[in-house]
Amino acid sequence: MTHVDDDSQGLRFRIVLKPGAALGPGKADLLQAIAETGSLTAAAARFTMSYKRGWTLIREMNAAFSTPLVETEKGGSGGGGGAKLTDLGRYVLDRYRQMESDAEAAVAAGVADLRKHLKRGKDRKPADPDAG
Amino acid sequence: MTHVDDDSQGLRFRIVLKPGAALGPGKADLLQAIAETGSLTAAAARFTMSYKRGWTLIREMNAAFSTPLVETEKGGSGGGGGAKLTDLGRYVLDRYRQMESDAEAAVAAGVADLRKHLKRGKDRKPADPDAG
Repeated sequence: MTHVDDDSQGLRFRIVLKPGAALGPGKADLLQAIAETGSLTAAAARFTMSYKRGWTLIREMNAAFSTPLVETEKGGSGGGGGAKLTDLGRYVLDRYRQMESDAEAAVAAGVADLRKHLKRGKDRKPADPDAG
Repeated sequence: MTHVDDDSQGLRFRIVLKPGAALGPGKADLLQAIAETGSLTAAAARFTMSYKRGWTLIREMNAAFSTPLVETEKGGSGGGGGAKLTDLGRYVLDRYRQMESDAEAAVAAGVADLRKHLKRGKDRKPADPDAG
């Protein structure tokens, strides 16, 4: 799974739908960027992801579901072509976002609670050099 | 993050408490195994994890929280010693398991729903050789 926003705080979750078929923030963000840009090249660029890597993720998703989530149009000398979500792709993305939001709500109090027990200060202390 | 049960299906989630401090299934399972075995060596062995790797995860957790989650006793010629959860360690583990369970309940219907749209059959088809 590509974590395109690994630095963000809070809940990070992925769904293992079956062995070898998982849906997480990397794929969801890629689907969303395709919906917004109409292009796999532009979508991948948004995450400094190579076109090849983006295409691999799309191919994985298209292979896992009963019908493809993303349709691509070959064409143009650059080979960029267009890309768009199918009805199922839009449905899967919307459902994933809903689940993400539901899960976040379910754990919000726990996250806030655990954060109260974190060490204060920006940096983590190195291990005590006298301890060994 | 070490995913000690990466093959399991369903929700996989981790909490990013602050940059560099995350809690996920690997660390939670390790804490639980320490509670159950009273030994980091035995706990790590349960996941075919090296003692060193286990100790690194523990050190990360101990450094992130206001007080340690795991206490170790040096001693014995083998250097194995004992390990046990502190009150905070027990609290964090219990809270994590509760959050995990709440998040799973929140997304259960969505997971079931998405699974209905998976391709049937055990193996994923290779890409259409005529498509390229």
